[in-house]
Amino acid sequence: MSISLGELAVLFGCELRGDPDTLIDHVAPLSAAGPGALSFLANPRLAPQLSSTRASAVVLDRRQLDICPVAALVASNPHALFARIAAVIYPLPAVRPGVHPSAVIDAGAQIDASAEVGANTVIAAGAVIGARCFIGPACVIEAGVNIGVDSRLVARVTLLHGVQVGARALILPGAVIGADGFGFAREADRWLRVPQIGTVRIGDDVEIGANTTIDRGAINDTIIADGVKLDNLIQIAHNAQIGAHTAIAACTGVSGSTRIGARCMIGGGVGFAGHIDICDDVVITGMAMVTHSLREPGVYSSGLPVQPARRWRHMVARLRRFADSDNRGADKGAARTTSPAKPDETQQDHDDE
Amino acid sequence: MSISLGELAVLFGCELRGDPDTLIDHVAPLSAAGPGALSFLANPRLAPQLSSTRASAVVLDRRQLDICPVAALVASNPHALFARIAAVIYPLPAVRPGVHPSAVIDAGAQIDASAEVGANTVIAAGAVIGARCFIGPACVIEAGVNIGVDSRLVARVTLLHGVQVGARALILPGAVIGADGFGFAREADRWLRVPQIGTVRIGDDVEIGANTTIDRGAINDTIIADGVKLDNLIQIAHNAQIGAHTAIAACTGVSGSTRIGARCMIGGGVGFAGHIDICDDVVITGMAMVTHSLREPGVYSSGLPVQPARRWRHMVARLRRFADSDNRGADKGAARTTSPAKPDETQQDHDDE
Amino acid sequence: MSISLGELAVLFGCELRGDPDTLIDHVAPLSAAGPGALSFLANPRLAPQLSSTRASAVVLDRRQLDICPVAALVASNPHALFARIAAVIYPLPAVRPGVHPSAVIDAGAQIDASAEVGANTVIAAGAVIGARCFIGPACVIEAGVNIGVDSRLVARVTLLHGVQVGARALILPGAVIGADGFGFAREADRWLRVPQIGTVRIGDDVEIGANTTIDRGAINDTIIADGVKLDNLIQIAHNAQIGAHTAIAACTGVSGSTRIGARCMIGGGVGFAGHIDICDDVVITGMAMVTHSLREPGVYSSGLPVQPARRWRHMVARLRRFADSDNRGADKGAARTTSPAKPDETQQDHDDE
Repeated sequence: MSISLGELAVLFGCELRGDPDTLIDHVAPLSAAGPGALSFLANPRLAPQLSSTRASAVVLDRRQLDICPVAALVASNPHALFARIAAVIYPLPAVRPGVHPSAVIDAGAQIDASAEVGANTVIAAGAVIGARCFIGPACVIEAGVNIGVDSRLVARVTLLHGVQVGARALILPGAVIGADGFGFAREADRWLRVPQIGTVRIGDDVEIGANTTIDRGAINDTIIADGVKLDNLIQIAHNAQIGAHTAIAACTGVSGSTRIGARCMIGGGVGFAGHIDICDDVVITGMAMVTHSLREPGVYSSGLPVQPARRWRHMVARLRRFADSDNRGADKGAARTTSPAKPDETQQDHDDE
Repeated sequence: MSISLGELAVLFGCELRGDPDTLIDHVAPLSAAGPGALSFLANPRLAPQLSSTRASAVVLDRRQLDICPVAALVASNPHALFARIAAVIYPLPAVRPGVHPSAVIDAGAQIDASAEVGANTVIAAGAVIGARCFIGPACVIEAGVNIGVDSRLVARVTLLHGVQVGARALILPGAVIGADGFGFAREADRWLRVPQIGTVRIGDDVEIGANTTIDRGAINDTIIADGVKLDNLIQIAHNAQIGAHTAIAACTGVSGSTRIGARCMIGGGVGFAGHIDICDDVVITGMAMVTHSLREPGVYSSGLPVQPARRWRHMVARLRRFADSDNRGADKGAARTTSPAKPDETQQDHDDE
Repeated sequence: MSISLGELAVLFGCELRGDPDTLIDHVAPLSAAGPGALSFLANPRLAPQLSSTRASAVVLDRRQLDICPVAALVASNPHALFARIAAVIYPLPAVRPGVHPSAVIDAGAQIDASAEVGANTVIAAGAVIGARCFIGPACVIEAGVNIGVDSRLVARVTLLHGVQVGARALILPGAVIGADGFGFAREADRWLRVPQIGTVRIGDDVEIGANTTIDRGAINDTIIADGVKLDNLIQIAHNAQIGAHTAIAACTGVSGSTRIGARCMIGGGVGFAGHIDICDDVVITGMAMVTHSLREPGVYSSGLPVQPARRWRHMVARLRRFADSDNRGADKGAARTTSPAKPDETQQDHDDE
């Protein structure tokens, strides 16, 4: 949709420099923007692009106002204001109340009259779908699931029995929430399944990415707090707890019973051992191997960055020789009894710092 | 359901200390248990919680019997007995024989009369569904698939043509079994698909996690032996073989033609190169990079645990300088001809130990 | 199907040594082949198997012709010729034009009369399905999607609004293409969603693996060029670009706005930081951590291969002591201001080479 700069300035209570009647109808990057486009400048490294932008207006910090050649909306947090304006220009598709005739709805399910349910979705007895929810096509919602108001399941989402989802959730296709945790007891050489009797409790304003899996708790529940953002292909194991407003990038795995605090930022491909605690306000860079609890806020990393293969091969050999040169007894003597990890303890807990 | 301690002692042939008429109707952790709850003690580190537990009964090893303040069921393997009892208290939902009217069943499919088929599931010609199977909603079962007795496909499982599944399988939502392997021949700068004509053969008592993928074989079959337990988001490539009673945690990838032995325990996020052999009884900790065959049972690891980012940055720089200081010729001289890996060889096989 | 060696020699213009009337009806590895089987020899390490093969014919390089005990088809690229012949012996299932009665097709969708649409598939208004496409069961195709001719969506594929797919695509079950990218602006301690208004554009001859996810662009589009092959469980984040004929093995993650060049071969479990450039003709081995741009063709690696756990523990401790011994000031002094990564920057960009 189209909106004037004056309306935006009033709507968001921000300072406008320029013609309030200028209309904005799309967003674009500084370097590619043209008439009708709104851009933003948050990363100072991109400031050189500002002077030549052809956007109709730019959202920026006051410090960049002098070098802005076009209209400007001034914000202390330009990225946040830009996000809010973009949500006005690109509103979510309206929810069209009603249930598609091909959906299979148990008579014991409660679906708010203002909710939309898409084609071929299956909803079981005892499920409760809140007001203005959008339940897209081909979802499976088992018995006893509760979904808060204004939530959106885009398509093909699976919520297993008893899963609780808060208000304003966004769940992307392929997500599986509430499947049995990976819990077994070993008996001789075999594994006995341990019934997974907890569920998954998800707070408000949570987003869950495509093909992400969140397992139900073994006895207690798996907990995803308010405002958590999970990217695609993430695994959250049974009994894990993710604190409020923590964001986790794709391909990360959180093992069983691990607790991650609030406001953490976790990179992609990170692995967390089981039964550890990560405190609030921790940042972990991509592919880090988190084998022990982290008790201080801060930025953490691990791994060796990529190198040309020959140089890497040399480095590996050299580091091994170096380690072995001091390896007094590490490979000798009676082997220590190692108690093999249970399968839900996906990493050893070394606490080797 | 509810059951008395006396009945449990008879059912499992174990020693009971306490009132045989005490009723158990749920399970709980030692520290949170109350009346009616059964707990267990397997990890000696949790022994301090035993003395103050309010559970109605605890499953434990004889050595902890003296310090147990409540009724006790004595077992040499308390975790296993607990698992068996929990399966009595929390039985699987009963299979309700019949096919949901919305399911799309080809006339050439054979579905045992005692099996249940859920809403919107699609079953093709030549598929055979065994006695007492539960095929949940929104599954896709292609031609020639065979599923053994008492198996459960929770929901939204895809079994592609010809896949063989044994008895008592549990397959979680989103699993894709029997998709084409990643096999190509390079011709000039392009890739030619190599038809993947094998299938996937899965033994009895196998469990497969949510959104896990198991590819069909290129020529021979991909094999998952009896009792294997696979967690969520695991990739098993074409022609891989996983030995009996091996358990693999989430986010692990097994490249093509790799064989993993029996009774192995593989952590989460582990990567296996292609065309290697892992012998029986190997334990591999989380995120390990398995580039070569492992021929001795034991515990294996790799990777550098997480550190504060500044310390990590220093370590990386220091290790590189150290390796380069001895790097005589590694980056000089004629480049060795490197034969680039085929795309299904996802790691180089160095055998650099 | 069955075909004679003479027909194959004519069809592919290759030299035949042996009886042109010999019939081939299946393919098999050299060591397991018997009458009617075609094998191939591309890897010189397997040459010893050639002398004892019982295949009816072998595709091989001229240099191996002398030691071949059976009929031979001679090719400069035996693997490629084998792939072409196998595609003749094992043709794709024929597309049966028509829409399954259980499919839910919006009146505004355009489906070519020669295309096949499977059971329970949902296709929205404005979608365009090209000639001879096979759209398997349980797919979800949103508004405005365009699929080129001769493409195959095996089953349960999700294409979200506006996604463009070229000709001859093969997309495996569970793939999710065009879901919202992981884009947020931080405001105080919360995250604001940034509307993701780009789409995904996929070239011709692309293959996309099971449960792989490709996010739509934030403002610009995510681009998958011609001939790209993506294995299972891969994450391609918003605005990423994958160059023509690049192949990526399973479990790899590509962060936002990263560009990978043409003809690259990427191993399994590799992680790419965001906003980096990988040039053409790069090979990256499995599980490598790619934190910075790569500007020269060649083979790149990282990571420490697996070791016995005791030896690994010793190595980690020794490397840490070594790094700390020189750690003058790395943990002292005023902490540098670290600007925490945005959640879509899943790895830090160090450029530490």
